[in-house]
This record gives sequence, C-alpha cells and structure tokens, in this order.
Amino acid sequence: MNYKKLGKILGKIMILEGILMLAPLAVSLIYRESFRHILAFLIPILLLSLGGGLLQLPRPERNHLYQKEGFALTALVWILMTLFGAIPFVINRDIPNYVDACFEIMSGFTTTGSSIITDITAISHSSLFWRSFSHWIGGMGILVFVLIFIPESNDGSSMHLLRAESPGPQVGKIVSKMKVTTRILYLIYLGMTVLEVVILMCDRPIPGYENEKLFFSLLAAFGCAGTGGFGFIPGSMEVFHPFSQYVMAIFLLLFGCNFSLYYLILIGKVKEVLRSEEFRSYILIIAAAVFFVFISLVWKFESYPQVYTTEEAFRHSLFQVASLLTTTGFSTTDFHVWPMLATTTLVLLMFSGAMAGSTAGGIKISRLVIAVKGAYINVRKLISPRYVPKAKFEGKSLEMRTINDVFAFFTLYFLIFLMMLFLLSFDPVNGQTFTVLSDAGSYTVEHGFFSNFSAVLACISNIGPGFEAVGAYASYAGFSYVSKILLILTMLLGRLEILPVLILFSKRTWQRG
Amino acid sequence: MNYKKLGKILGKIMILEGILMLAPLAVSLIYRESFRHILAFLIPILLLSLGGGLLQLPRPERNHLYQKEGFALTALVWILMTLFGAIPFVINRDIPNYVDACFEIMSGFTTTGSSIITDITAISHSSLFWRSFSHWIGGMGILVFVLIFIPESNDGSSMHLLRAESPGPQVGKIVSKMKVTTRILYLIYLGMTVLEVVILMCDRPIPGYENEKLFFSLLAAFGCAGTGGFGFIPGSMEVFHPFSQYVMAIFLLLFGCNFSLYYLILIGKVKEVLRSEEFRSYILIIAAAVFFVFISLVWKFESYPQVYTTEEAFRHSLFQVASLLTTTGFSTTDFHVWPMLATTTLVLLMFSGAMAGSTAGGIKISRLVIAVKGAYINVRKLISPRYVPKAKFEGKSLEMRTINDVFAFFTLYFLIFLMMLFLLSFDPVNGQTFTVLSDAGSYTVEHGFFSNFSAVLACISNIGPGFEAVGAYASYAGFSYVSKILLILTMLLGRLEILPVLILFSKRTWQRG
Repeated sequence: MNYKKLGKILGKIMILEGILMLAPLAVSLIYRESFRHILAFLIPILLLSLGGGLLQLPRPERNHLYQKEGFALTALVWILMTLFGAIPFVINRDIPNYVDACFEIMSGFTTTGSSIITDITAISHSSLFWRSFSHWIGGMGILVFVLIFIPESNDGSSMHLLRAESPGPQVGKIVSKMKVTTRILYLIYLGMTVLEVVILMCDRPIPGYENEKLFFSLLAAFGCAGTGGFGFIPGSMEVFHPFSQYVMAIFLLLFGCNFSLYYLILIGKVKEVLRSEEFRSYILIIAAAVFFVFISLVWKFESYPQVYTTEEAFRHSLFQVASLLTTTGFSTTDFHVWPMLATTTLVLLMFSGAMAGSTAGGIKISRLVIAVKGAYINVRKLISPRYVPKAKFEGKSLEMRTINDVFAFFTLYFLIFLMMLFLLSFDPVNGQTFTVLSDAGSYTVEHGFFSNFSAVLACISNIGPGFEAVGAYASYAGFSYVSKILLILTMLLGRLEILPVLILFSKRTWQRG
Repeated sequence: MNYKKLGKILGKIMILEGILMLAPLAVSLIYRESFRHILAFLIPILLLSLGGGLLQLPRPERNHLYQKEGFALTALVWILMTLFGAIPFVINRDIPNYVDACFEIMSGFTTTGSSIITDITAISHSSLFWRSFSHWIGGMGILVFVLIFIPESNDGSSMHLLRAESPGPQVGKIVSKMKVTTRILYLIYLGMTVLEVVILMCDRPIPGYENEKLFFSLLAAFGCAGTGGFGFIPGSMEVFHPFSQYVMAIFLLLFGCNFSLYYLILIGKVKEVLRSEEFRSYILIIAAAVFFVFISLVWKFESYPQVYTTEEAFRHSLFQVASLLTTTGFSTTDFHVWPMLATTTLVLLMFSGAMAGSTAGGIKISRLVIAVKGAYINVRKLISPRYVPKAKFEGKSLEMRTINDVFAFFTLYFLIFLMMLFLLSFDPVNGQTFTVLSDAGSYTVEHGFFSNFSAVLACISNIGPGFEAVGAYASYAGFSYVSKILLILTMLLGRLEILPVLILFSKRTWQRG
C-alpha cells in the first residue's frame, strides 16, 4: 500500500474541499449571517488547508498506484470529504448532531438528496447553499475534478481512479483520453448549469420569495446538474411556476445523458449520438414512463386525493419521471399518494437510473441493456448449444466478460439491497406513524415495509425521497443513528457502484504483497 | 422439432394424470358426494386416457430429444397438466370459473399454495383432496415420475428433462444415475410422507373435526411433503394442536433438504452429509431466522396485536420460518401483523428458499452460496489482478461457468420480478381495501405496493400467501383475470426456474435447424 502517495492525493482533495467551502462562506457574508455561521465555514477551511498541506510534505517512493489502491482511495476520498463537509452544520447548529450532519452531506455529495431536516425554513442560507453545492460537486465526481490539476503519470494510475468513480459499466473512449477531455466534460457541465440558471431567472419570481430569485435558481440548477434533489423550500419544487418546472424537467433529462454525447455533438458527430443504443433506450424509457404515469393519473380507475387538470397531470408526470429516472428526487406534487401504476412505474425508474457517464445514480440503462442481451444469449445457448454469441453493444462486440461483470453487479446489488433491508428492520421507528402535510392534504403514514424498501432503494440509487414515511414530504429524521449510518454507507455503495467500498473495507487490500 | 416424440411423452403424462385422478375420485365415492362431484373427476379421466392413448399411436422417426426440446417439453407438460387438472373444479362448481380453477391447480402443482378460494368450508372433500394431492405430485416433479416408467434411451434425452425440472443450479451426481436412483428418491419421498401421516395421527383430534383426522393428516402431509401450503380449514394450521404444529415444522425442514442427502444416509455416508456446505448453510439460516423472528416477537420494541407466551412465540417462529424457508406457506398464526424485524426476516427467507434438490421453491441456498463466493472472487480479482480463483463448492472446484450461470439466474429473476410487479400495477384491485379476520382480530388492509410485491414474490418462489391483501388470512381472489394469468405464469417460471418457460415461448425453439 503506497501510503505516502495516497496521503498526497487525499491532501489535495482536502485543500480542494477547503477552496470549495469559500463559496458558502461568501454566501454567509453576503446574507450578513451571524459570526457563528461564518465561523462554521472558516474553521473547517483552516483544518482542511492545514491537514491537506501537511499531507503534501512526505515524498512517495513510487508514483504509481495499483488498481486496488485506486479503488480504495476513491472510497476513502468520499468518506473524508463527508467527515469534513459535515462540520459546518454542527458549528452553525443547523444540524446539531454530527451523524445527522454526515448523513446530510453524504446525501449531498452522492447526489442522493435524502434529508434529515424536518423544518427547512429554519436553515441558514449558507447551509442551504453548501448542501445544494455539494450535489454539484459530487455529480461529476470529486476525483475527476482533482485529476485535471495533478500531473498525469501516464502509467494508468489516474485511469484506476476514473474507473472507480465513473458511473456505469465501462469508461467510455472519450474519458480515456483523460485530462483534456475531462476538462471539456467539466466545461460542458459548467456551461449547462449556467444556462439553466439563466433560463430559470427569466421566470416570474415565486410569491413570498421575491428576493431569492438568483439564490433559488442557483440551488435548483445545482440540484438538477448533480441530479441531487435537496429541497430548499417546503414542498420541494411545488411552489415553482410551471415554466420553471418544465425547464427543470428538461434539464434533468439532459443531465441524465452520457456527457460524452455532448462531446460528440461538439465535434459534429450528431449521427453517432442518434445511433447510441443507450441513448435510444433512454428516450424510449422516458416516453413509456411518462405515458404510463400520465394515463394512471387521468384514467381514474383508481382514486387518489389530488385533482389535476390534464396539463398538470402531464407536467407532474414528466417532472416526476425526469426526477426519478435521473435519480434526483425533486418533486412538484405529492406522488406518494398516486395510483399503483404510477407508483410502480416510478419504483422501476428508481431501480434503473439514467445513462452511464451521466451524473445520475441507479443501476444505469446500459447495464440493463447488457443484462437483457446477456439473458437472451443464455436462453439462446440452451436452444442451440452450438450457438456462438455475437451480440453487439454501441457498435462494438459485447464480450462475455462484460456481460458477466454486469451479472455480477446485479447479484451484488441484489444481495446488498436485501442485507440493508434486513438491518433497517431492527429500527424502533418501524410501525410508528407520522403525519404528512402535502398538496394532497394531511394524512398519516405508518413506517412499514414499503418505507424501508423505498429508503434502501432511494439511498442505493442516490435518489433521495422514497415512499410512505420517507416520501418527498417526509424526512429520514425518524431513523435511529445506527440506521442513518447504514444508509450513509448505502448511499456511498450506490454512488461508487459497490466495488470501491467493498475493496476499501477488505482486509486483503491493506495486506502486503 | 420431434413432434411425435413430444406427443408420445405428453400422452404418457396425460394417462398418468388420469390415473392420479382416481384418488380424488375414490375420495368422492368414500364421502358419498353427489353425482356431479363424481362426474367432475370421471370426465377428465376419460378425456385424459383417450387423448393420451391417441398420442401413443404415431411412431417417432427418432427417439432422441435435443436439449431445447427437453426444456420446452417440460414447460409444456406442466401447462397441460394444469389445463386438465382444473376441469374437476369447474364441473363440480367448487371453482366455477376456469381461469380461477387453473390458478388454483397450477398453484397446487407448482407447490405454491396461493388460493383464490375465499370460503374454504364450502369446498368438497374430493376437491380439497385433489388440491393438496397436486402439491404432492408436483413436489418431486411430474416428469421425474414418468421417467421411472419409460424405457431409458441412454442418449441423454431424459437427462435434459431432469435438468429442466429439478430445482437448483445443477443436477447432483446421484440423480445422474437416473432410473434406479430416481426410484429410490421417490421411495424416500413416499416413506417420509407416510411417516408424517402416522405421526400426525397420534395427536388428539381437532375439536369440531373429530371425524376428519385421517383426511386432515393426509392433506397436511401432502402439503409438507410437496412444500405446497394449501389450507383446508379456516386459518390454515392455526387449529392444529401444538404437537402437530411441531411435527409439521420438523417435517417441513426435512422436506427442505436435498433428497440426495437421505440417499447418502441410507448408504451410510453420514459424514458426507455433515460436510455438505449447502446443508450447513441451511442449518445456519434456520437457526438465525428462528432467533431473529423469536426476539422480534418477545422483545416488545414494536407493538403488535397478538399476545403470545414464550412457548407460543417460539413455536410460531419455528413454524413460520420452516414454512416460508421451504416456500410452503402454511401458517399457525397471522404473521402479517408481526413486527418489522420478523416480517423482513420472513421476506428474506421467501427469496432464499431451501436446498436445491428438495421440493422447495425460491432461489435456493446453493445459488446464494455460489453467488456470495462469486461476488467475493470478483472483488478479490480487482484487489490482486493476478489472482487465480480456486473457490470450491461441496468439495469440488467451482468453475466460473457455474458462477456466471448463477449470476445470470439472479439477473433474470430480478428482471422478471420487476416486470411482473409492473404488470400487476394495472389491476383495478390496487387501492381497494379488504377486511381480514384472523387470530390478531379483525382489521382492514389496503391492496398496496407491498401486496403486489409479496404476491409476485410468493408466486415466483412458490410460497403461497404474501402480506397485506394477499396474506395468509386473505386470498388472491381480488385480482383480475389478467393478473391471475400473469401470476399463473409467474408460478410456472418459479417452479421450472425460468429457463424452460422462456425456451417454450421462444420463436426460435419452434424453427427448423
């Protein structure tokens, strides 16, 4: 284990986090918050720069990182970012408990958006900014960002880090060109975020929040870009005007695309984009899901408390599909009370997630496509034993190795899902009832099986809200601290797609040889 | 496609089913049921023997069956058995609707035990017998039974049939010796069933059912042996005395063992049984599950309506674990209202199922063990790229091919599960409320997400009752006919472990060459 090199990279990440915290510090100053709120960011900034600086001093004997080191480092970076990122909330007392604060910021960095805050109106501007900003930081990946600035070693070290952090079954050809392209991807990310802020600014101000237009546009764009989904006003995106809701829905779907597609468009290869199987499946899934949710809302074969016009039904369908498929978790209405067809469609989207190479979580559409093709090959082989599979994916031949990796991922995902479901069942919160107040009225929900099920799903897929007691109008505050720590781990497992976390906690990783 | 050979085997199955129907016919005569009830079995017996006889006439050009033919035939046999097996219920009007009747008998043959009957006291003795007898027939497999009587072709044809019908990832070494050993397995099955009937007969009679002692003992033993789980008195096994409940729990666990273990014991290789990894895991899972359910019932950190003594809590824990791990579905109390830890433990058991080569459904413990080992290998390979996996299972080296087959199975299982969940969400039954009357009192349940989730799980794992609106004290009667047909398919997919059914419905199976 190359501890000195690991330390050096960790140190760089710490310094970076310190720099990023200057933004909420500025927000705190702009809104003239109390000295405690300013201190809340100043202290961790000092800690991070001091610690990060000290870690730069030792000279590593070798510059190279092995694959296992790359994977373990990635998981470690995310944990470290969370441990420091939680400090401000504790100091400014917005979230006095450190475990709660860690839950909140891990939920932020992993772009989950699950929250333990029960009264969002009591949270300071700087904390709200830091929360939503963490989505934006975590969306594209923290290490990817750092890699832009560290000297390239040409020995594949950085490749291991990218492989560990990038969502999806394989790192695309574009990313493999590394630094230059990584910069381009980050610029696209930044550009699209700015564009969304500008468009959102064109809408009329929200009644009651006239002075917050820029602030809210920023936070909403951070959430959409990172496909996070922290709310910052009661009722998530409910109070936004329809224009803004449509804009957000479209940007959500755009951020759910593989970023290399934008690169392809930039270099004029639009045809290649349209030929992409994952992109076509993405469009198909969106269309089908909006259709099913919409008919579920307008065909009244099941009663539900909300009354929508056709336009509203379409808008909420589009928004909720965009929000859950991209594993964001924003909501424009209380979808928890929707009919079963809508609910089940949304649950399936929560499993799926959007495209690989986007900022979204979940299993990823490319994995689903590969899994279906792999399943077909398995059946086909039984029908004709001499059949030689010649399946293709994205124009390239699909190797059995890739298929088996995807199968292994499904199995791990399934086993971890069941394990977390079991562990949550120990929580004393089970069976308790909560009162929810939403646009569907006031009603009580019991923390039942579906609450735990959707909590695990929402965390492992980095979505945020689930159903029942952890719905969009409820919070994760009811869980015990043990469960919260388990869910923190679940979010990390989901964001890093399981393997880096398992490698970090594997004894063998830390043994010699 | 060797249609004539397929027809010949199908015909043999039909004749066999006709012979098996003589048993309920006898029951009908013994209980002096009406002429309609006698006719209900006479008519299908005539149809089956006539049809089966006609199918024997053509002489097939080749005797050999290809793998795809073997798989498709297996699925076809089960469908045919169901289509004919449902006829008696329609004629004697116990289940007037043919789809309902097919649901019931498919549930019987696949040893699921899901029922659409809402008033079990209105059902005739002969129908009750045929239902439970179908568990016993389906438990060991229908084709396996036939293979004992048809001449062995030594060309592997029968092997394909066995592979398609036998539960678990691979056919054990014992089964491969075919006819002789198949007979031994069937004798063990028969012997254990008889033993259970004899022991159950030793208990005091059930108050109110004094004359039904033998009848009930038989039906209970059929259910345990086949790990089916059709109830035959209101409240499933609730009215049985504790002695009988313990006896059933133990027999359930015995029938959940791989039958080749009994063969090993018979030939004196007890040590090999104790060395079996799957057997050890099975014991471990039972112990752990009983422990968790028991502490969930006695540690009152969550309130639930039933009041149990410690003995009762232990008995119900043992029984329910035995019943759900072996995917039987009998119940001695209303476990639907149990605390979350107990509920979640039971749900996990429903996924797992018992040992391969037993009469139980589910994913099977051997698959779980192989999946965990496979996942470990995947992580291990990332840590040290030069690592050569040398995992073992049951003393033999575990090949990557086996692991990948298991991974593929998990993926298919997962995809089919989600698809069925989606299709059930169209049912108008969603959102409706039902009143349940059980030992926990009278309460209303809504047909919500957990109802559909547990219905799919209970059918694909061949368990029977689920939770909420499809709990042990409710029924599947509320589903629409479309949903019922989907669930019939789900049961068949679960019983034949997916692949034979997919092959049957694959266009390519029926093409030349």
